[in-house]
Amino acid sequence: MTHRLEPLLNPGSIALIGASDNAGRIGGMPLELLTRFGYAGHVYPVNPKYQEVFGLRCWPDIESVPQPVDLAVLAIGAAEVTPMLKRCHAHGVRAAIVYAAGFAEAGGDGLRLQHELEAFAAESGMLVAGPNCMGFANLNTQAHTAFASVFKTAPMQQGPGQVSLLTQSGNVCAAVYALARREGLPFSQFINTGNEACIDFSAYLEYLAQDPHTEIVLGYLEQLRDGPRFVRACRELQRRGKLLIALKAGATDKGAQAVRSHTSALAGDRRIYSAAFRQLGVIEAHDFAQMAQLACLATLRQRTAGRRVAVLTMSGALGAILADRFIGAGLDLPELPAQLQQVLRDGIPDYGMVGNPVDLTGNVVNNPGFVRAALQALATSDAVDAVVVYAPGYMLDRMADALGEVARAHPRLFAAIDTGAAQCRQALREAGVAVFDDLGRAVSALAPFLSWCDARQRGRATVAATPGPRQEGKAPALPCHEAQARDYLRRFGLRDTARQARDADQAVAQADVLGYPVALKILSADIAHKTEAGGVALHLSDAAAVRAAHARVQEAAAAHAPQARLDGVLVQRMEQGVAELIVGATRDPVFGPVLTVGLGGVLTELYGDTSHRVLPIDAAEAEAMLRELKVFPLLDGYRGKPKADLAAACEAIVAVGEALLATPAAAEIEVNPLLVKEAGQGVAVLDALILPSSQ
Amino acid sequence: MTHRLEPLLNPGSIALIGASDNAGRIGGMPLELLTRFGYAGHVYPVNPKYQEVFGLRCWPDIESVPQPVDLAVLAIGAAEVTPMLKRCHAHGVRAAIVYAAGFAEAGGDGLRLQHELEAFAAESGMLVAGPNCMGFANLNTQAHTAFASVFKTAPMQQGPGQVSLLTQSGNVCAAVYALARREGLPFSQFINTGNEACIDFSAYLEYLAQDPHTEIVLGYLEQLRDGPRFVRACRELQRRGKLLIALKAGATDKGAQAVRSHTSALAGDRRIYSAAFRQLGVIEAHDFAQMAQLACLATLRQRTAGRRVAVLTMSGALGAILADRFIGAGLDLPELPAQLQQVLRDGIPDYGMVGNPVDLTGNVVNNPGFVRAALQALATSDAVDAVVVYAPGYMLDRMADALGEVARAHPRLFAAIDTGAAQCRQALREAGVAVFDDLGRAVSALAPFLSWCDARQRGRATVAATPGPRQEGKAPALPCHEAQARDYLRRFGLRDTARQARDADQAVAQADVLGYPVALKILSADIAHKTEAGGVALHLSDAAAVRAAHARVQEAAAAHAPQARLDGVLVQRMEQGVAELIVGATRDPVFGPVLTVGLGGVLTELYGDTSHRVLPIDAAEAEAMLRELKVFPLLDGYRGKPKADLAAACEAIVAVGEALLATPAAAEIEVNPLLVKEAGQGVAVLDALILPSSQ
Repeated sequence: MTHRLEPLLNPGSIALIGASDNAGRIGGMPLELLTRFGYAGHVYPVNPKYQEVFGLRCWPDIESVPQPVDLAVLAIGAAEVTPMLKRCHAHGVRAAIVYAAGFAEAGGDGLRLQHELEAFAAESGMLVAGPNCMGFANLNTQAHTAFASVFKTAPMQQGPGQVSLLTQSGNVCAAVYALARREGLPFSQFINTGNEACIDFSAYLEYLAQDPHTEIVLGYLEQLRDGPRFVRACRELQRRGKLLIALKAGATDKGAQAVRSHTSALAGDRRIYSAAFRQLGVIEAHDFAQMAQLACLATLRQRTAGRRVAVLTMSGALGAILADRFIGAGLDLPELPAQLQQVLRDGIPDYGMVGNPVDLTGNVVNNPGFVRAALQALATSDAVDAVVVYAPGYMLDRMADALGEVARAHPRLFAAIDTGAAQCRQALREAGVAVFDDLGRAVSALAPFLSWCDARQRGRATVAATPGPRQEGKAPALPCHEAQARDYLRRFGLRDTARQARDADQAVAQADVLGYPVALKILSADIAHKTEAGGVALHLSDAAAVRAAHARVQEAAAAHAPQARLDGVLVQRMEQGVAELIVGATRDPVFGPVLTVGLGGVLTELYGDTSHRVLPIDAAEAEAMLRELKVFPLLDGYRGKPKADLAAACEAIVAVGEALLATPAAAEIEVNPLLVKEAGQGVAVLDALILPSSQ
Repeated sequence: MTHRLEPLLNPGSIALIGASDNAGRIGGMPLELLTRFGYAGHVYPVNPKYQEVFGLRCWPDIESVPQPVDLAVLAIGAAEVTPMLKRCHAHGVRAAIVYAAGFAEAGGDGLRLQHELEAFAAESGMLVAGPNCMGFANLNTQAHTAFASVFKTAPMQQGPGQVSLLTQSGNVCAAVYALARREGLPFSQFINTGNEACIDFSAYLEYLAQDPHTEIVLGYLEQLRDGPRFVRACRELQRRGKLLIALKAGATDKGAQAVRSHTSALAGDRRIYSAAFRQLGVIEAHDFAQMAQLACLATLRQRTAGRRVAVLTMSGALGAILADRFIGAGLDLPELPAQLQQVLRDGIPDYGMVGNPVDLTGNVVNNPGFVRAALQALATSDAVDAVVVYAPGYMLDRMADALGEVARAHPRLFAAIDTGAAQCRQALREAGVAVFDDLGRAVSALAPFLSWCDARQRGRATVAATPGPRQEGKAPALPCHEAQARDYLRRFGLRDTARQARDADQAVAQADVLGYPVALKILSADIAHKTEAGGVALHLSDAAAVRAAHARVQEAAAAHAPQARLDGVLVQRMEQGVAELIVGATRDPVFGPVLTVGLGGVLTELYGDTSHRVLPIDAAEAEAMLRELKVFPLLDGYRGKPKADLAAACEAIVAVGEALLATPAAAEIEVNPLLVKEAGQGVAVLDALILPSSQ
């Protein structure tokens, strides 16, 4: 079945409306590219001023074009666009690209123009790309519809390509294309989405997911207009073994501010984007050169790889520097097993090293038999996932035959770093070895790529099931008080022993059952801050204390908020634990229900030590969230302290997520603090909150 | 006056002992380089096997060489080295370079050989470089004594250079040289120190500090053998306006392990190195490409610059990405003042941005008058310290004249990033503009360089005064108990109201003076862990409670440690504060007395949130330490909480440092926790400790 975007991205015929005979103008440049690179389809320049441009017959208007047209490129002013789209549609044109700026991004009149355009596209079913975009290029068919001089300046590719570029900025599109072409990467599609009035980033991504000519997508985005569609497209990419490498602008307030001005769009929360990317098997990039290097690595993704790296150098110093950088970037350099060390020791002199990094020493490169044996041993060891060779150019040249041979024979990932000028780079690349010319670039590409391989290997990168229709919980009317919130959350598996008491007698009875000491808290949907209202009493060690406290908190709350409806008190056992967590489920404007976990308290915020996931998650993912936290050691028997009950904590975390998924009326559900007790002793909910969506 | 290392680094005549006619061998390569590049001094190959090598007369032995020899290069085996050094010395040779490995780094017999070599050098006064080194090159005189093929493969420099390379690894020396030459940097000295048996890294650095041909030093180090000499050399570099850019290997355990194996040397603590570097005005680098870029920037260090960057792009997207990266790397992108925005708005269309980043938009490059005016306005604004222009190649070309002109006219730092292939790069460099071909590299060089400029501007990079002879405090006999430690620390300005009490009556009397509630702690130099010994009583609210607690802690301590000498109790007021700090002064094996500050408690360790300085420091530096902590906001009125008494905290921090400087017998002095109270209310010492050096 032909994809509906086919006329845009793989057109059989192109009309250029507003054609020019000047290759420096937007009405001329695509025509020059189409003729220069030999596009095989029909091209119809349209402009009453010319008889012929770039050797092509020029037509006075779209109505005169005799054959059917797949795609019209509109190189005309914003005000003329929608009338021209109507004429194109009437003439049977299936799709159009609108270059013109002056639409929504300009505000005012531009907004009105964009609404008109959108309305016409919706009503007619015509495919309209842009406006305010640079156009496309299909590098396999040479269907150039972009006014981008980069195609003339960047090295032209010889064969077909399988890397596609998809960006929300034309400048970024051109910059990444130029860098990646210098690395020799051949491209398939080049897509600049512009204002995305009718077709958004995720819709193009869907196309690329099913495009047989695309294996790797390099994406730049500032804002996703359709999060669920993005999730679906990423899932399809994963299913087909394709890979999206994405750079999301707006990592900082300043960055986000620039994006806002640029696209009149609010960037989503960066941490949620990063979490979603990881869950969706998307590799996140942070600059263009890194994107290009990641794309090169991605072409080797059929190889086996992971975070455990063996480093082979000719120098202890180079090994030390590389170890510093790799470990700093989150990779492992495991100590090599004794048997493997023995194999290496056979050929490495005493002053070399057989641990990891391995220092072959300079002399060893003259012994190709041993180099081959050493690489072979590393290629087949269970103790490592990938092998990085770091040698000055001429030494790499001497090892190149052995390295190429071993890389051809074994599916493991091999990378070489040459800070000199090795002659063997191309030969190594052809043997399937990743080659870098710089340590910093090698680390910045290998670290995220190997982490991605690791997640893939452990099955972590698979997408969580869609948040399918949850059995909707019978949620309490919101806002609700704490006991109602706790009652509701218990239905989703949150273990919680605290109980509501209507009066002092009931409070004492509950406390007798729970065991002393207990705490009392006033219950009222109208009182948000119980402590400030004097509505909390702690450390109550017997029935008399409970009775006295009951009277005290009732009085204080009534005095604090005379209008508030009081619903008795919550009785809760005072408990000791290993650590207090904050567990919160909220709704992200892009990705929908998401979950946040961190250590409770003020330092978590200062250190930004939180973990996020798009919901739903299971207990294994909840544990992965906890293990991501820098404070995780606190839960894991830090300095002789007891281990925390991780299983119970994970159960509680999952419960909070499930509750939000099942409660459309809730904007946010938070358990804070969640006291995690010693292993085997469970958790205690110290406070719980459900916020209604209207808030 | 001629520096004593002159015969090594600027020799007038060179003998090569173990000469070879094969340029691929270590006895041949320096001869080939000396003849190829036209060294003007005398060269004496020495080897009885040859009459002539590389067109030079070859001498049968050093004794036959007729003229005085400044420098002998020994390309002979380890065992022959010291006997040959003796012969050279007898023949009047002033200095020698020893290539041979097989000395200390090999252990065993090698250690003995190195001791022999050291003993002879010490006794004779002969200058001996290495062993186990690659040699040197003076690129201004072409005095090549290194067996390094990089001089043949890297692009040769045309004019004189002012950048010197000083490394503890020959491979690193060659790798950095190759990269920096590709950037066009011309060199002065190339020095590989090897085992540093007689001349260490800091001694060479001293030479370079006074060398009129060196302005910038690129250093690679694994270990400093003489910390105080390094400090002196750095101070001399600073005094002369020179700059050291240093890469220290061993940032992680793995890195440090590789270094240990490599040089049989224990790397000092990385955090102390980083702190010392910052205090000494040294820029710390993390990879070779970054070192080369930093060296390029360093040539522009006469320009004014700092952390407040104005970013100028042709695209909101590029601006957003750059803002993300710069802010992530610790730089500021301040909002531009209204007046400056007005100047920019005059030429920038509505859809461009005049904040920061500035989006000139693509059209504006065609208006050179406005581009010049905009750059001029940024060059003279008080609101920014440096200007970064980020434009695709062809756009940068169109702005190049204006940019070059403004950069020539104004002392402010300008940098350009071109991810395309701009023609103007060389012209911009000649105008004093830093040019980068990649965003990531630009950020990784600009961030540390601009932070360094900022510190220089604020006078922070100046070295603290030498720890001169302190009036030695009359330290208590160590180990001492807590009251003795506190008494001693009070002499250095630590404010502390806690007092020793010999018996219960005295304890009550002290408590009456201090005010209730108080805490009691047992005092005994023999009891390190008072809480475990039951020797602490808290929250004592009246005289009766003090009496009861006194009896209790005495009994518990006596039961816990029957042999311990008990010296009564410490009486201390229970106090509330804003935050608890740990303040510790220790002795670093390289840099001597150093100070560490962090928030007390277990999270500080997990987050690694500590600040370090080489002592001495003053109150301003103590405050800078606190401000460096990620938790600093806690002390600064976080979320409506009161501000902490920073002045009192800084006074206490300085006192701890001064105490260690004045107490040679102490290995460590720690106040932990130091309770910092609300502004104006001072601090309270909650515990204090002095550890003797023998521990």
